[in-house]
Amino acid sequence: MKLLNVNRVEDVRKKIDDAFPNIYDKWEEISIEQSLGRIAFEDVFSPIELPEFSRSVVDGYAVLSKDTYGAGESMPVFLDIVGHVDMGKAAKGKVMSSTAIYVPTGAMIPEGADAVVMIEYVENLDENTIAVYAPVAPSQGIISKGDDVKQNDKVLVKAKKIRSRDIGVLSALGIEYIKVFKKLRLSVISTGDEIVNSFGEVGIGEVRDINTHLISAMAEESGAEISLKLLVPDDFEKLREAINSALEVSEIVLLSGGSSVGAKDMTAKAIESMDDGEVFVHGVAVKPGKPTIIGRAGDKALFGLPGHPSSAMVIFKVFVDYLIRKYYSTSEDIIYIEALCGENIHSAPGKETYQPVELEEKDGGYVAMPIYGKSAAITTVAKSIGYIKISENKEGIKKGEKVRVALF
Amino acid sequence: MKLLNVNRVEDVRKKIDDAFPNIYDKWEEISIEQSLGRIAFEDVFSPIELPEFSRSVVDGYAVLSKDTYGAGESMPVFLDIVGHVDMGKAAKGKVMSSTAIYVPTGAMIPEGADAVVMIEYVENLDENTIAVYAPVAPSQGIISKGDDVKQNDKVLVKAKKIRSRDIGVLSALGIEYIKVFKKLRLSVISTGDEIVNSFGEVGIGEVRDINTHLISAMAEESGAEISLKLLVPDDFEKLREAINSALEVSEIVLLSGGSSVGAKDMTAKAIESMDDGEVFVHGVAVKPGKPTIIGRAGDKALFGLPGHPSSAMVIFKVFVDYLIRKYYSTSEDIIYIEALCGENIHSAPGKETYQPVELEEKDGGYVAMPIYGKSAAITTVAKSIGYIKISENKEGIKKGEKVRVALF
Repeated sequence: MKLLNVNRVEDVRKKIDDAFPNIYDKWEEISIEQSLGRIAFEDVFSPIELPEFSRSVVDGYAVLSKDTYGAGESMPVFLDIVGHVDMGKAAKGKVMSSTAIYVPTGAMIPEGADAVVMIEYVENLDENTIAVYAPVAPSQGIISKGDDVKQNDKVLVKAKKIRSRDIGVLSALGIEYIKVFKKLRLSVISTGDEIVNSFGEVGIGEVRDINTHLISAMAEESGAEISLKLLVPDDFEKLREAINSALEVSEIVLLSGGSSVGAKDMTAKAIESMDDGEVFVHGVAVKPGKPTIIGRAGDKALFGLPGHPSSAMVIFKVFVDYLIRKYYSTSEDIIYIEALCGENIHSAPGKETYQPVELEEKDGGYVAMPIYGKSAAITTVAKSIGYIKISENKEGIKKGEKVRVALF
Repeated sequence: MKLLNVNRVEDVRKKIDDAFPNIYDKWEEISIEQSLGRIAFEDVFSPIELPEFSRSVVDGYAVLSKDTYGAGESMPVFLDIVGHVDMGKAAKGKVMSSTAIYVPTGAMIPEGADAVVMIEYVENLDENTIAVYAPVAPSQGIISKGDDVKQNDKVLVKAKKIRSRDIGVLSALGIEYIKVFKKLRLSVISTGDEIVNSFGEVGIGEVRDINTHLISAMAEESGAEISLKLLVPDDFEKLREAINSALEVSEIVLLSGGSSVGAKDMTAKAIESMDDGEVFVHGVAVKPGKPTIIGRAGDKALFGLPGHPSSAMVIFKVFVDYLIRKYYSTSEDIIYIEALCGENIHSAPGKETYQPVELEEKDGGYVAMPIYGKSAAITTVAKSIGYIKISENKEGIKKGEKVRVALF
């Protein structure tokens, strides 16, 4: 049996960094209305200040704050109404001592005024006079020009995944189009003489293709676009042809299946036979995930994933997702949930263990239950909401120990 | 000033339940390859058992386990090779006492055999004979027919959001098409004389439309499809026309803006003027979120959201998202992150407070920092990653207290 070089996760990631030193540089300009979930290609700065004019944040009267000092329940201050501001219109008139101008919420503050007293504290004595029953401090009731956003403030950060609130901010600034990373193109090739189309006839001894669908969907969740899905038998020439077609339309090619050492060797040879082809990782010190290989053809990345779906999921998360994030220059998008470990978990000596778990709510917190099962079992995949990482030097985790669960 | 009836969150949700007793019943059948992120319309049961035949989970020799008992490093058991199984093919031959058949990982277990001994524990003495250096227990190295999934096992649960791992499971079972909820159709109408198209010219005193874009994107995140986005001035007839157009193509209509009481009154009147129109919630006991109204026109839902973006976000999450989940019969999809509160937070007496926060990583955990700012400020929206809910009877939260942050 050929000895596999085993590599620690950090070493493997370093090798990936070295093999693919550049970030992905393809972008497209799209409307912010189409940008939900996309990745910002560059920092965006505000072209304007916000608000663009000082606005009232209450319904009330724009006044000089010092006119109201000393006003109280039993000692109102009387002011002359000298006008009103219409919503959406420039404020006319000017507030001078002992006068007030009506402003609705959101309307422009008229010249001279430095505060707005809420109508709740005002009594209209007649058409031209109000009694003010509470004092206001300078700038109370007002959001001043530029208070919210200054010109050239950074309002969207390169490599950020765009959420609804970012779209809100951009629309507030009148920014209609932004540059986002073009989606990374990724292809999935499943191999194995026993693997057949999931939706066709299945003969005795044959198995439906799982990984093409599972891994494609995971890649979509990671922000990639699937350009090709191929299913090929364990045949060197057919595998080479498939890889060639995939490389033409993808930045990343995932090869899944062929869980035996012989099949991995064929995958490695096929990668090495490409133009400028090289395999720089043979095996990784990760449990599960034994027969993983990583290579390149020029500046395109190729991963040989384990054939077992749950192993393939882990290796995808630990290495492929790592490269996708590197290409988009996004930071690790993992959400960690704190939980108590529900059972003792054993780790594999000298390997980082990624133990899939399910989460149960208990006493207002979560309990993480490890999911076992023969690694060929699809039900282990179905239940796994995330995983616990156990470092190579740790002897396992005890029941009741606090753990961080990384969501898949 | 008209007194608003204030309603507790639970009371309001009860009123929503009463007004819209039925779940949404529109579905479509789609390929699982298109189903990522969609909501399952019905339970799905396995049409088959998995594996469909007993398979080897290792490369090795199918044997009778009892033949290997007593085998050890220094005392091998010798067996005759009587055949091999090809990947993807029906197993031929039969294993009887003192014989073995070669099986690669994933291949079918031949008749007679009850275990597979890994090649690591086997030495090939000649073409026809192996020495076995370790014992195997019954069923070791085998995943038996039906071990993984039984026929009629529930493999997808109604109202579940479909993730990559579900797609993996469905493909393993040969299920190509599933029923998913048709996307709920939702329209957003922004009102206000001062509100103008975000991407056009903005005059003095005018403000760019934020809420249409913010709320539409939030609705998309909640799984709705946006059918109409309209911007109308504070004009009763124009508002009625807009609502009518929106009702024709939507299950839910959101009206945003008109933060003044007068504008809310107009919105309420417009809703009441619809066929079978009714407003059943005037104001909610939530901070922020003062001028919220909820009504219906027949079986369609209408929400009048606060004009301030951060208030609109909270009300969307607390009530609109609640209704969307109810329609899809999905459970609350909120992910809670445990954090320590980074500052004292004051609550509003008699109201549930939803305090937007940002999260900072610290010492391997999170600190939740409350985000303040005048509620008209868009920067408060930009920073808010989630919120802390403070119940109406709680006096606020102390710095250092443990809190659960619900992600937006």
